Amino acid sequence: MTQTVEPSTSTDPQQRVDRWLTDFEEALTAADADRASRLFASTSFWRDLISFSWNITTVEDPAGVRDLLEHTLASTAPTSFATSESPTEADGVTTAWITFETATGRGNGLLRLVEEDGKARAWTLLTALYELKGHEEPRGTHRPMGTRHGAFKDRTTWKEQRQQEAETLGSTTQPYVLVIGGGQGGIALGARLRQLGVPALVVDKHPRPGDQWRSRYKSLCLHDPVWYDHLPYLKYPDNWPVFAPKDKIADWLESYVTVMEVPYWSSTVATSASWSDETGEWTVEVEREGTPLTLRPKQLVFATGMSGKPRMPDLPGLDVFRGDVHHSSAHPGPDAYAGKRAVVIGSNNSAFDICGALWEHDADVTMVQRSSTHIVRSDTLMDIGLGDLYSERALAAGVTTEKADMIFASLPYRILHTFQIPAYEAMAERDKDFYERLEKAGFRHDWGDDGSGLFMKYLRRGSGYYIDVGAAELVCSGEVKLAQGQVDHLTEDAVVLEDGTSLPADVVVFATGYNSMNGWVADLIDQETADRLGKCWGLGSDTTKDPGPWEGEQRNMWKPTQVDNLWMHGGNLHQSRHYSLYLALQLKARLEGIPTPVYALQEVHHTG
Amino acid sequence: MTQTVEPSTSTDPQQRVDRWLTDFEEALTAADADRASRLFASTSFWRDLISFSWNITTVEDPAGVRDLLEHTLASTAPTSFATSESPTEADGVTTAWITFETATGRGNGLLRLVEEDGKARAWTLLTALYELKGHEEPRGTHRPMGTRHGAFKDRTTWKEQRQQEAETLGSTTQPYVLVIGGGQGGIALGARLRQLGVPALVVDKHPRPGDQWRSRYKSLCLHDPVWYDHLPYLKYPDNWPVFAPKDKIADWLESYVTVMEVPYWSSTVATSASWSDETGEWTVEVEREGTPLTLRPKQLVFATGMSGKPRMPDLPGLDVFRGDVHHSSAHPGPDAYAGKRAVVIGSNNSAFDICGALWEHDADVTMVQRSSTHIVRSDTLMDIGLGDLYSERALAAGVTTEKADMIFASLPYRILHTFQIPAYEAMAERDKDFYERLEKAGFRHDWGDDGSGLFMKYLRRGSGYYIDVGAAELVCSGEVKLAQGQVDHLTEDAVVLEDGTSLPADVVVFATGYNSMNGWVADLIDQETADRLGKCWGLGSDTTKDPGPWEGEQRNMWKPTQVDNLWMHGGNLHQSRHYSLYLALQLKARLEGIPTPVYALQEVHHTG
Repeated sequence: MTQTVEPSTSTDPQQRVDRWLTDFEEALTAADADRASRLFASTSFWRDLISFSWNITTVEDPAGVRDLLEHTLASTAPTSFATSESPTEADGVTTAWITFETATGRGNGLLRLVEEDGKARAWTLLTALYELKGHEEPRGTHRPMGTRHGAFKDRTTWKEQRQQEAETLGSTTQPYVLVIGGGQGGIALGARLRQLGVPALVVDKHPRPGDQWRSRYKSLCLHDPVWYDHLPYLKYPDNWPVFAPKDKIADWLESYVTVMEVPYWSSTVATSASWSDETGEWTVEVEREGTPLTLRPKQLVFATGMSGKPRMPDLPGLDVFRGDVHHSSAHPGPDAYAGKRAVVIGSNNSAFDICGALWEHDADVTMVQRSSTHIVRSDTLMDIGLGDLYSERALAAGVTTEKADMIFASLPYRILHTFQIPAYEAMAERDKDFYERLEKAGFRHDWGDDGSGLFMKYLRRGSGYYIDVGAAELVCSGEVKLAQGQVDHLTEDAVVLEDGTSLPADVVVFATGYNSMNGWVADLIDQETADRLGKCWGLGSDTTKDPGPWEGEQRNMWKPTQVDNLWMHGGNLHQSRHYSLYLALQLKARLEGIPTPVYALQEVHHTG
Repeated sequence: MTQTVEPSTSTDPQQRVDRWLTDFEEALTAADADRASRLFASTSFWRDLISFSWNITTVEDPAGVRDLLEHTLASTAPTSFATSESPTEADGVTTAWITFETATGRGNGLLRLVEEDGKARAWTLLTALYELKGHEEPRGTHRPMGTRHGAFKDRTTWKEQRQQEAETLGSTTQPYVLVIGGGQGGIALGARLRQLGVPALVVDKHPRPGDQWRSRYKSLCLHDPVWYDHLPYLKYPDNWPVFAPKDKIADWLESYVTVMEVPYWSSTVATSASWSDETGEWTVEVEREGTPLTLRPKQLVFATGMSGKPRMPDLPGLDVFRGDVHHSSAHPGPDAYAGKRAVVIGSNNSAFDICGALWEHDADVTMVQRSSTHIVRSDTLMDIGLGDLYSERALAAGVTTEKADMIFASLPYRILHTFQIPAYEAMAERDKDFYERLEKAGFRHDWGDDGSGLFMKYLRRGSGYYIDVGAAELVCSGEVKLAQGQVDHLTEDAVVLEDGTSLPADVVVFATGYNSMNGWVADLIDQETADRLGKCWGLGSDTTKDPGPWEGEQRNMWKPTQVDNLWMHGGNLHQSRHYSLYLALQLKARLEGIPTPVYALQEVHHTG
C-alpha cells in the first residue's frame, strides 16, 4: 500500500492558520528572520502599520520580509499570535483575523494564506499596532468615573478642570503636539490625542469648527457615503444621510469637538514656524483672534488638507477681466449668477458640482475640459466599488467600519489596481449607455492609465475624476456647454482658449485643483524644509501625475518624514479616521519616551 | 404497557414557545378571547405598550387578558407571532423575545412561560409597538439620501430647507405637537417626532439646550451610570464617564439637538394655554426672547420635569432671615459659602450632594432630617441593582441598551418589589458596617415601606432616597452635623426646629423636593384642568406618598389622560429614552388619522 501524504490545505482553515502562526512565532522567537521569511509566498506582501517598523511600510516577497525582520525583530519582540475569530476560505485563499503583542504594545491584523509548494504560505499580511501597553485608552471597562466618590476638600469639577486647561494651554503650559488645521483630519487626530492623554492643540483659521465645510459652495454634499465617513469613537446615528450635506457635516464636526473635548482654537492663524535643535522644539507664531502668541510644541502636524494649496494659474488678463473670478475652493455658490454667463475651467468633482448648481440656478454655463477625466456614477460606485465594505449590506454581513478599514488597509498598494480593474470594467459595462452619451457630447473620458479607475486615481494623484451625482447628464445633453483646450488668456468679458475660441463670461471659476501639501510647509516654515520633506501624497506608480520610483505607501502621510518632528495628516474621512490612530500612537510613544526605531524611512524623490 | 404522557416541558424551549405562540395566534385569529386567556397562568401579567391597547397598561390573570382582548382584538388584528432569537430556560421559566404585527404596526416583546397544570402558560407577556406600517423611520437601509442625484431647477439645499422651516414654524406653519420643556425628556421626544415626520416644536425657558443641567449646583454628576442614560438614536461614545458631570451632559444635549435636528426654541416661556373644542386646537401664548407669540398646536406635551414644581415650604420668618435662602433647584453651589454656616433642610439626593459640596468648600454644614431616608451606596447599587441590565458586563453578555429597556419594561409593576427586595437585602448585607455607622450617627434610615428599596421609591413617589457617592460618610463622622425634626420658623440668623433647637445659619437650602407635575398644568392652563388630569407619577401602591388604589402603571405618564390632547412626558434618562418612543408613536398615529381606540383609560383618584 502506498501512503497518502495529506497536503496542508486538506486541514481546516483554523488548523491551517494556527499552524502557520505557530511556525511564524517560533521563527520570530528564535530570531530566525530567514526561516520566518520562508513562510511567505514567493510573491507576497507584508504591510506594517507601526507595529514592527514604527513606520507605515510594505515589504514584498520573502526577501523583503527577511529585511524587515532583521531590522526590527530585536526591538519588537513579537509574541502571542492568535486568531480572533474563525478563519474563512474562498478561492484558494484562507483569511484570518489575528492579534499579537509586541514589547511595547498590542496589535491586530489580517492574514491571507495561499498554498505554494504544498504548504500554506502568507500571501498578504497586515500587522497594525492598536494600543501601547500601560497607555490603554480609557474606554469601555476603563472609562473614567466622571466623579470621585467620597468627600474631598480639593475637588474640582469637570467644568473647572476644562476651564483651567483652556486658560493655561498656550500660556503657562505648552502642547506637546500642535496640529495646524482643524478640518476632519485635525479633529480626528485631536480626539485621538485627547484619548491618549497627549497634550495637544488644534488650531484653525475659521471662526468655528466645521467652517471648512460651511464655506464651500452651497450645493456640496459628500461624494462618499456615510458608512465610509465615520469619525473615530462616535459614529453617525443611523438616520444620517447617505451623502451628508456640507452644513450638516459641519455641525457634526462642531459637536464632535465639544463632545470629544478636542483642544481646539478657532480663529487662529499660524504665521511662521521654525525648529530649534538646541531646545528640541518648534517655535510657532500664531495669531489667535488677532492677538499674536508664540507656541512651543515638540511635534508639529500639518492637517491643512491633503489636496494642499489651491492651484490658481497665473494667466494673462486675470487683472483685465471685469467679472467675478475665483478658485473653486472660494466659489460662493450659484445664487448671484442667475442669467449670467459662467465659464468653469476644469472637469473634475468641483467643476461638475459647480456647473450643475449654476445650471440649476439658470446661469448659462460652459465647462472647459483641459484634459481627460474619469467619471463614474455614484450609484454604480457605491454598489460595485464600496458595497462589500461600506454599506448596510456590509454591516448586515458583519463587516463593521473597523473591519472594513482593516480589510481595505490589507490590500497591498502594489497590486491594488489589479483588484480595481475588474470592478471598473463591470461599471463600464453597467453604464455603457451613459459613457456613449458622454463621448457623443465630445467629453474626453478615461479609466486611469491602467483602467483601474477612481480609487487608484485618488491614491496616486488625488485628482482627475468626478463621482457623478447628476451633472454629467447636463454635459451629455448640452445643457452645460463643453469646450475643449487650454486657457490662453482672459479679456474684459471672456475666456480665450489656445485655439482662439472665445467664451463670453460674467464669472470664471478655476476648478484647477491643488498643489502638494508641502506648499503649506514652504509657506509656514521655509522652502528648504518643504524640499527636504518632499512631495506629499501619491504612490510613485509612474502614472500620470504620480511619478516613480515606486514608494510602496502614500508619500509622507501619517508617518515619519525626512524632517524630524514634522508630520503630515489628512485625506478623506475614511483616512482621517483610520490613519489618525497610527499617527496618534506614534506621537504618544514619543511623548512617553518609548523607543520608536523607524524602519525604512522613506527617501525623497520629488520636491513637490 | 402503560403509555407515558410527555409533559410539555420536556420539549425544548423553542418548541415550547413556538407551540404557545401558535396556540395564542390561533385563538386571536378565531377572535376567541376566552381561549387565548386560558393560555395564561392563573397568576399572570400582560403589559401592553400601545400595541393592543393604545395605552400603557397591564392586565392581570386570565380574566384581565380576556377583558383586554375582548375590547381590542377586532381593531388590533394581531398576526405573525414569532421568536426573534432562541428562547432560553432557567429556574422553570422559559423566556422568549418575540415579534408580531397588528393591523397598523409592528411590535416586539418578551414572553415568559411557566408550567401550570402540565401546560406551558404565559406568566408575563410584554407587547410593544415599535413602528407604524407605512410610517417606518428613515434609518439604516431607509436612511435619507441627503442629496438628490440629478440636475433640478427647483433644488434647495439642506441648509435652505432648515432655514425655511425655522422661519415659517410658529408663524405661517403650526407645530402639530408643542412640547413644553426642553430637558432630556423634551429633547428625546423631539428627536423621535422629527424622525417620524411629526411637525413639532420644543420650547424651553433657558438660553441654551442643556442649561437645565448647567444651572444646577456645580458638583452635580449623574447618579445613574452611563449605560442607563443613553438617549435615542445616538449613544454616548465609549469613553463617556460612568457618572457624567452635569456640564458634560449639558453639552451633549446641546449637540444632540443640533445633530438630531430637534426643532427647539430656547429662551421661550409659555405663559398660558387653553383648549378649544371648536377649533380642536390649543392656543398657547409664549414669549420668545421676550416677544409674545401665539402657537396653535393640536397636541400639547408637558415635559417640564417629572419631579414637578419645586416645593418650598411657606415658613414663618422666611422674610426675616438675613442670609441667603433658596430651594435646592436654585442652589448656586458652594463657592460663596466658605467659612459660612449652612443649614440644609432635607436628607435626599440633593440635600446630600449640596451638604457634601459645602463641606468640601469649608462651610460649617448642618443637615436637617425631617423623615426617614433610604440610602444605598453607588457602587453597590451599580453592581447588585443595575449590573445585569446596564453595565459593561451586561453589554458583554449581549444585553444591549434596547434589550435592557425591554427586560426592565417586562417586569410587572405589581410584583416588581418582590424582585427588588432580595437585591436590597443583599446590599444591606454587603454594606452592613456602613449602615451601622449611619445609625450610630443618629441618621434615620429605611429600605422603603416593604424593604424594596430605591427603584420602587423612585417609581412610587420619586423621592425619599440618596444614592451615596460619598457624602453619607460625612454624616457618619459628624463632619456634616445632623439635626432631626421639622422646621418651625426662621429667625434673622437661624433655623429653629419644632423642638426649639436653633441652628445658626448664613445660608439655608430647602432640599424639600417637588410637587406633582400637574402643578405646571394648573399654572399654564387652569386648576380645573389640572384636577381633571389628576396626580402624575406613582403607582397607587398604598405606600408612603403613593396612595392607593392600585393604578397598575405610572399615573398619566406617556399615555392618554383624562384631558384630551394633553400628555405628560418625563422621568430619568432611561425613561425619557424608552417611553418617548411610545408617546411619539401615539402622537404620530393621531397626526396620520390612524384609529387609536384607548383601552382602559385611567381614572383619576387624586388631584395632586
